[in-house]
Amino acid sequence: MFHSLLIISLLFSLCNAAVQDFCVADLKGPQGPAGYSCKSAGVVTADDFVYSGLSGAGNISSLIKAAVTPAFVEQYPGVNGLGLSAARLDLAPGGVIPLHTHPGASELLLVTQGIIQAGFISSANAVYVKTLKKGDLMIFPQGLLHFQINGGGVTAVGFPIFSSPSPGLQILDFALFANDLSTDLVSKTTFLDPALIKKLKAVLGGSG
Amino acid sequence: MFHSLLIISLLFSLCNAAVQDFCVADLKGPQGPAGYSCKSAGVVTADDFVYSGLSGAGNISSLIKAAVTPAFVEQYPGVNGLGLSAARLDLAPGGVIPLHTHPGASELLLVTQGIIQAGFISSANAVYVKTLKKGDLMIFPQGLLHFQINGGGVTAVGFPIFSSPSPGLQILDFALFANDLSTDLVSKTTFLDPALIKKLKAVLGGSG
Amino acid sequence: MFHSLLIISLLFSLCNAAVQDFCVADLKGPQGPAGYSCKSAGVVTADDFVYSGLSGAGNISSLIKAAVTPAFVEQYPGVNGLGLSAARLDLAPGGVIPLHTHPGASELLLVTQGIIQAGFISSANAVYVKTLKKGDLMIFPQGLLHFQINGGGVTAVGFPIFSSPSPGLQILDFALFANDLSTDLVSKTTFLDPALIKKLKAVLGGSG
Amino acid sequence: MFHSLLIISLLFSLCNAAVQDFCVADLKGPQGPAGYSCKSAGVVTADDFVYSGLSGAGNISSLIKAAVTPAFVEQYPGVNGLGLSAARLDLAPGGVIPLHTHPGASELLLVTQGIIQAGFISSANAVYVKTLKKGDLMIFPQGLLHFQINGGGVTAVGFPIFSSPSPGLQILDFALFANDLSTDLVSKTTFLDPALIKKLKAVLGGSG
Amino acid sequence: MFHSLLIISLLFSLCNAAVQDFCVADLKGPQGPAGYSCKSAGVVTADDFVYSGLSGAGNISSLIKAAVTPAFVEQYPGVNGLGLSAARLDLAPGGVIPLHTHPGASELLLVTQGIIQAGFISSANAVYVKTLKKGDLMIFPQGLLHFQINGGGVTAVGFPIFSSPSPGLQILDFALFANDLSTDLVSKTTFLDPALIKKLKAVLGGSG
Amino acid sequence: MFHSLLIISLLFSLCNAAVQDFCVADLKGPQGPAGYSCKSAGVVTADDFVYSGLSGAGNISSLIKAAVTPAFVEQYPGVNGLGLSAARLDLAPGGVIPLHTHPGASELLLVTQGIIQAGFISSANAVYVKTLKKGDLMIFPQGLLHFQINGGGVTAVGFPIFSSPSPGLQILDFALFANDLSTDLVSKTTFLDPALIKKLKAVLGGSG
Repeated sequence: MFHSLLIISLLFSLCNAAVQDFCVADLKGPQGPAGYSCKSAGVVTADDFVYSGLSGAGNISSLIKAAVTPAFVEQYPGVNGLGLSAARLDLAPGGVIPLHTHPGASELLLVTQGIIQAGFISSANAVYVKTLKKGDLMIFPQGLLHFQINGGGVTAVGFPIFSSPSPGLQILDFALFANDLSTDLVSKTTFLDPALIKKLKAVLGGSG
Repeated sequence: MFHSLLIISLLFSLCNAAVQDFCVADLKGPQGPAGYSCKSAGVVTADDFVYSGLSGAGNISSLIKAAVTPAFVEQYPGVNGLGLSAARLDLAPGGVIPLHTHPGASELLLVTQGIIQAGFISSANAVYVKTLKKGDLMIFPQGLLHFQINGGGVTAVGFPIFSSPSPGLQILDFALFANDLSTDLVSKTTFLDPALIKKLKAVLGGSG
Repeated sequence: MFHSLLIISLLFSLCNAAVQDFCVADLKGPQGPAGYSCKSAGVVTADDFVYSGLSGAGNISSLIKAAVTPAFVEQYPGVNGLGLSAARLDLAPGGVIPLHTHPGASELLLVTQGIIQAGFISSANAVYVKTLKKGDLMIFPQGLLHFQINGGGVTAVGFPIFSSPSPGLQILDFALFANDLSTDLVSKTTFLDPALIKKLKAVLGGSG
Repeated sequence: MFHSLLIISLLFSLCNAAVQDFCVADLKGPQGPAGYSCKSAGVVTADDFVYSGLSGAGNISSLIKAAVTPAFVEQYPGVNGLGLSAARLDLAPGGVIPLHTHPGASELLLVTQGIIQAGFISSANAVYVKTLKKGDLMIFPQGLLHFQINGGGVTAVGFPIFSSPSPGLQILDFALFANDLSTDLVSKTTFLDPALIKKLKAVLGGSG
Repeated sequence: MFHSLLIISLLFSLCNAAVQDFCVADLKGPQGPAGYSCKSAGVVTADDFVYSGLSGAGNISSLIKAAVTPAFVEQYPGVNGLGLSAARLDLAPGGVIPLHTHPGASELLLVTQGIIQAGFISSANAVYVKTLKKGDLMIFPQGLLHFQINGGGVTAVGFPIFSSPSPGLQILDFALFANDLSTDLVSKTTFLDPALIKKLKAVLGGSG
Repeated sequence: MFHSLLIISLLFSLCNAAVQDFCVADLKGPQGPAGYSCKSAGVVTADDFVYSGLSGAGNISSLIKAAVTPAFVEQYPGVNGLGLSAARLDLAPGGVIPLHTHPGASELLLVTQGIIQAGFISSANAVYVKTLKKGDLMIFPQGLLHFQINGGGVTAVGFPIFSSPSPGLQILDFALFANDLSTDLVSKTTFLDPALIKKLKAVLGGSG
């Protein structure tokens, strides 16, 4: 069947080059601008490339009725260096993923259940809003404010995929009201009333 | 509520910078190494960022019982320049996506229905195979041979997301047997028997 | 002085390779994900590499007492493809550059006059605030909310330099209140009161 | 001859910035997605930038009459981080480098002796084959299946240069038949007959 | 004011993803092609993002009447991985920054005081020279020979910003005459007279 | 031989995605920061990927006894967007490629005939010089001054491969003495004597 049955010697001459097809993150090793250090290839198994942590629904029993479950490089070390990561959105009826950005990645959202109304705002201050159904995709360009809302009567589920293993997540309300940025600075830089800011800080756990 | 009610003048001084947050492909414009030319921002609408072509099942009535439906930049111009694209896999029971590579991207596969057995082979010739269930993710590093097989008794569905708007798709059987690469060259470079190659070329539509 | 006086022939054999050291933007040509088309090298002059539009103060007579003047690729075509652009901040006493992001670039701010208090908020919701004086540099990582405030009694001036010719600029108040994103959606995704949103939309020119 | 003889002080003020022009790989240090850790600059010598391992012919006495000798980053640490590496092909008359891909790099092949017939297959399933003579260059885009065959009566030599220090090398026959990917999976994903697969696995050292 | 006062649970579900917005250099950790290892996020403070080392004038009392003070990643670890760094030029009347290149970055020069005459030479051997005043910007494409000269009667100051944390700095006179590259090799590769080279080596501290 | 003989329908469902594996330059189309526009895939042939212009020796009859023949994207459009290009060096006995830089690429030099003495100078002003024989490789990091000299008694030949389709080429002597940069500016920025500069300008064809 083969022209030659004795090409085994080829195998050794061709394959003595160690290679780096992937770089499963060693979360305890040093991290650099391009990502985590690689686990030794010798201990990498198929399990390193698979992540099951998004298979179950997030906890949507909170009053905002929504959950975001990340599968970034810290949760899913196999994506290190490969330019991709993921998350899962669960949105009960009335659920909302509030305005947020991913400073380090664009996002491609796949809706797998229900109806999601989603939108983003561009640098030119244009608004792009659509109502998405099961199987629809929507792309959110890197770094822009966007949101997702349950747009139907049943629980909706979506899977955002990011163009980086470390997309980051900056939720506007938390950035404004859930840390120790002083009420004075928040007020000056948002023009919101200090009394309102203090009230929101109290709700969201911020101080100052 | 605001410290000042008259900051409108700020709006104009701050916003007179045109910006390029995105670059929706003008599929008829010139294409370069980084992607397609951008549609004029003035005619971009929310529809450009949404793609519904993966919401329906692909045709799995063929004897291989599987379909791949792409949402690359040519189908989904909104992803141009944003480092992401997608596809949909439909696998009837017994269905197979045969061995293939994406020369231009890594792939993150999300299983949304059924059971998929998937695997890839590394440059070091190691094999990584896993059986995936609904909600599981598996990452396939760029350029490596991989496959997906229905691993259960019901139709399975998965959505691969790619780290490029133009991942490419090279299916091994078609590369070997469905074009005009001569039987002699296929035989010499695969060590397969010429008679077998001719038979497969006949099946898959190749010549030479 | 030279070992050989007749190396002129070398000049021609070595220099017949056209080269692309730079790509001054042709703002009227097609634009792609990597930037604008290049002006023909034959018409490029030293003027293309210089920009004087930031030499004068911006208009700080508005009530917010601040101005941002961009020198992005649209204003300064010479930076096209070179990974850099700039802007100028003028901050009268009490002046504020409100919370904003640059979706496409990190920013290195150089203070050239006065005192500027500046800060950013990370994805981990940590706050980094510093008071900067003349000659100080502060770096703001890509895509994170940040602000600048006059921190002294005299007009302050700073020059942000960006890691992209098209950094983008998304000002929070404008994104929320100066476009047609509906009051209902703003309220749902920020948890702010609809009445407040309507009031702010009226001030900032938004609708809906 | 100089306007000033006393500019030595300049030397010290200008040169106190450590710099990273290169990053010779420390093969024992941690590896990340962008490559290996750098050797300390203090111990780098000219030898680190030179590699002589390709100066001799590879062993072409095997029955396939060909050898590939890599100069990837593991063999040639000086290329770490510089976007280039190399290899040497030796092809006795009748010699063949079987179908393979480099998942991580494009390849520019320089023929330095004899005649090489080379070709690649695109994602669109087009075939590009040429017969190359001494001094010819051929480019193989990243990730695509390609091959090289001795096209003349004398030993041929070529030097592929890659656009990455770690191009990887996936040889089709070895990926299919020289590992433990089960005969059942190979058969299902290539449509080859199980009996044939078992025969080839026996020849090439595969199992399962 | 909020639709819900009890969204605190959201905070925890959304924020349990560690993120990498920045990577402040740990100058003692391993360095790779993409930069230095990151300091542990837990010990990063606002001080890491600010650099005050350029606020004072460099020493221009030397006979060349100029100083370059770098704020590269080694001096300013906060820029690691963020694609930016800076320097300060001080040019007394008659001061000169001699011909040099930055092998790893383009440069955007901001003039903040006085008059600077600056220029660069392209690969096509075209010369681009301009006289810059306070507030002017000039861009120098990566890797090209360029210079800055005080073009007025008073001390001039400028701030170059680079498109890399490690731009490098290769000063022509030092590269030719301030190291141990042999006089013979310098002469052969520049066509300058050996006697002249030896004289310049003596001035600039070179040997050989 | 196949499990199914009727998988042809698969062919069409899988292959309806146009793809961009390569982007052969249309030298008359618009050029952007990432390279030239792509030729229409329909007119691309195998010839586009092959370049024979380096197969013959360059003209080394000049008094410097050396020639550089480029195969950059302008000469070899098939490399557009693929991160590689090449050149050929011919060095008669005594031949010299004078000090030069490639502003846009690192260089990997392969010696194919004779002896070449080569070296480069780092930003830290260290000198790395080696004598290379046939089959040796030497890497020159991006943007650094380097040279090649015939180091033996017979004609030497080498092939530099670059990490960019447009590496650029800045030859020091030409940059200093073969253009219209004024003698005054050359003198001020190199500290060379104006009389010497004028003499060299006369030899090399410069003016001013």
